[in-house]
Amino acid sequence: MSRIERFADAVSDAGMAAALIMNPPDVYYLSGTGQPCNLLVTPGGEPVLFARRYLDLARRASHVERVLPGAGFSAVAREARLGDGPLGMELDKVPAALVDRARRAFPDREFADCSGLLLAQRAVKDAGEVEAMRASVRLFDAVHAAMCEHIRPGIAEYELAAEIERALRRAGHDGVVFQRRWDAKLPMEGGIASGQNLSTISRGPITVTGVGMGEAFPMGASRRRLERGDLVNIDLGLNRAGYHGDMARTYAVGELPDGIEPLAHACREIQDAAMGVIRPGVSCESVYEAAKAAAERLGVADVFQGYDDLHGPYIGHSIGLELDEPPVLGPGVAEPLREGMVLAVEPKLISPAFGAVNIEDEVVVTADGCELLGDLPRCLFVVGESGDVARIP
Amino acid sequence: MSRIERFADAVSDAGMAAALIMNPPDVYYLSGTGQPCNLLVTPGGEPVLFARRYLDLARRASHVERVLPGAGFSAVAREARLGDGPLGMELDKVPAALVDRARRAFPDREFADCSGLLLAQRAVKDAGEVEAMRASVRLFDAVHAAMCEHIRPGIAEYELAAEIERALRRAGHDGVVFQRRWDAKLPMEGGIASGQNLSTISRGPITVTGVGMGEAFPMGASRRRLERGDLVNIDLGLNRAGYHGDMARTYAVGELPDGIEPLAHACREIQDAAMGVIRPGVSCESVYEAAKAAAERLGVADVFQGYDDLHGPYIGHSIGLELDEPPVLGPGVAEPLREGMVLAVEPKLISPAFGAVNIEDEVVVTADGCELLGDLPRCLFVVGESGDVARIP
Repeated sequence: MSRIERFADAVSDAGMAAALIMNPPDVYYLSGTGQPCNLLVTPGGEPVLFARRYLDLARRASHVERVLPGAGFSAVAREARLGDGPLGMELDKVPAALVDRARRAFPDREFADCSGLLLAQRAVKDAGEVEAMRASVRLFDAVHAAMCEHIRPGIAEYELAAEIERALRRAGHDGVVFQRRWDAKLPMEGGIASGQNLSTISRGPITVTGVGMGEAFPMGASRRRLERGDLVNIDLGLNRAGYHGDMARTYAVGELPDGIEPLAHACREIQDAAMGVIRPGVSCESVYEAAKAAAERLGVADVFQGYDDLHGPYIGHSIGLELDEPPVLGPGVAEPLREGMVLAVEPKLISPAFGAVNIEDEVVVTADGCELLGDLPRCLFVVGESGDVARIP
Repeated sequence: MSRIERFADAVSDAGMAAALIMNPPDVYYLSGTGQPCNLLVTPGGEPVLFARRYLDLARRASHVERVLPGAGFSAVAREARLGDGPLGMELDKVPAALVDRARRAFPDREFADCSGLLLAQRAVKDAGEVEAMRASVRLFDAVHAAMCEHIRPGIAEYELAAEIERALRRAGHDGVVFQRRWDAKLPMEGGIASGQNLSTISRGPITVTGVGMGEAFPMGASRRRLERGDLVNIDLGLNRAGYHGDMARTYAVGELPDGIEPLAHACREIQDAAMGVIRPGVSCESVYEAAKAAAERLGVADVFQGYDDLHGPYIGHSIGLELDEPPVLGPGVAEPLREGMVLAVEPKLISPAFGAVNIEDEVVVTADGCELLGDLPRCLFVVGESGDVARIP
């Protein structure tokens, strides 16, 4: 069954008359085109792709047979042959005013959120998608090389960001990162933070965010200059051919600060503990619980995923055409893992006392466990002033 | 009067009971913080800033006196003392599902779109904002230097993008670009296009978009390598301290192709014609009409802002905390210009026959005309293989 056929079945099972898909990564997933389009999926009917702008390009890129011009919802309403039930739209993503316009084109119709159905389908990757994500994860090799080349006392976080971005673009990054959350935003090099910026958690989710260049966007690289003995974290969204990776590593400038080695060990052990329980059927929550139990056993529960009243309720998340896909590997998430899911696993130990140590990698859920998508050593790197690199642990 | 006081007056004049502001650039404009917050503005009442995440950071950054914790709408509902009228929200930006959650917290309340009120206020910049935008426009100097240094036969568009991004980050770019449109997306280096990619208009608005690295995001720099005699366009969103510039220039690789010089002249003359009519009281539409009349007079109307059935209905747009602010300088937009508006003026001549020639600059509307925010020559640049640069015209 094709992706559209499977989605049509889910729409039907949910009692919806049809689904109207507009969010670019969703349209791309189902129809194969990245052009701005509305895709009408009707159970039992032929899918129709409405090109909001460039009809010829949409036709050329998409495998959908029926591609029509149409920027507005009236074109959709003219073609739609809907049975009973609400019309599904991506209500978590499409602005309210735009949905209101759709309501006017379908005046007596209820509307329902169909994002959950599509995201549940997208969560299980096929073999081609897993290969695409392997290639995306491999982009981090260029990041790592640039970090090792440029991390020296005196360089500013934003200057380091410039080198990371350059390396990523040259390695084939698409240049943009897709995020599901409406107000999420990341520079291409993601979050770079050092020194006291490691434990200032700002703007984004509870993680190592950095503090940014100013108050208008207070996260990411700042003007702070690295000093010998600093830790530096990088955590970023990689995107190649539409598929994302999410990788993080910690670097030390010139020498490893006192007390960090056991934290690097602990971070790796927590990640191992989480990965150790990942297999089909296990709940998202129990992956989090395994990580948390490891943090407790290792005596780092007070700095696990944050500190004081800031503890991020997650150990990872699904990832694919968007960086931040559901499900979250967090408390209260009973959803079972399925074979083919790709998960980011990201323990981080954060405290004003030492800064932060983090590590993040992707795994694909296999029939009886999981498999790492990358092969970069999962450790902390101490970058010497002559460019020598030592690994901890 | 403060920004919040003026906005509260507009909310009152529109008959709304209050406005609940969530979009980060809007929250930043009114409250001074870039932290994720909901800002409740009630005519006659004290504004309340609800920190969705980092209360201390929001308190430290904001001049709003009453800053409370509160991620959800129930916290807002508990504090709100609303008179008659709908509650304003940014319905053009906030996803429908989130607005539905707000509806549940205010069960008997109508909701209205308050974005127009706030964007109308934001459109007129104060002196500090104009200075911020001058600094943002100046970021293009680094772009221009990198274009002149790296435009050579053999370099790929994406490799050029890597150098532009690096130069921008080093010059102090915030690392992200804010756009109002829900599905708009730009790499940091914006659109880079050359050769046949100049006239393939893809994904974004009708402009020089480039074709991108693949179908998942089919705009921006591609893998195409520059050849001697190519034209290269760059058009990008600059962002420094939250304020944007939007600049474009055209470069020729090694030599100027036949027939391009008159087009470069025409592009500059069209821009001059548009800028020549900009002053307070003139309608947005008439700026477009002046540009279009110049294109007709110069014999380039058939390639003005596009070709065949693709002609972008605009000659420019307002710009500020977001790259793509209203009003648009386009047909049917009767809104009069006001002193203090900052406008991007962007003529472009596009055709499969020659590619594209474009130019874009910002002006601020003054008491009796307008003033350019930058001082980069408004011309086409021919970049020689030894790095010599000639200007046309």
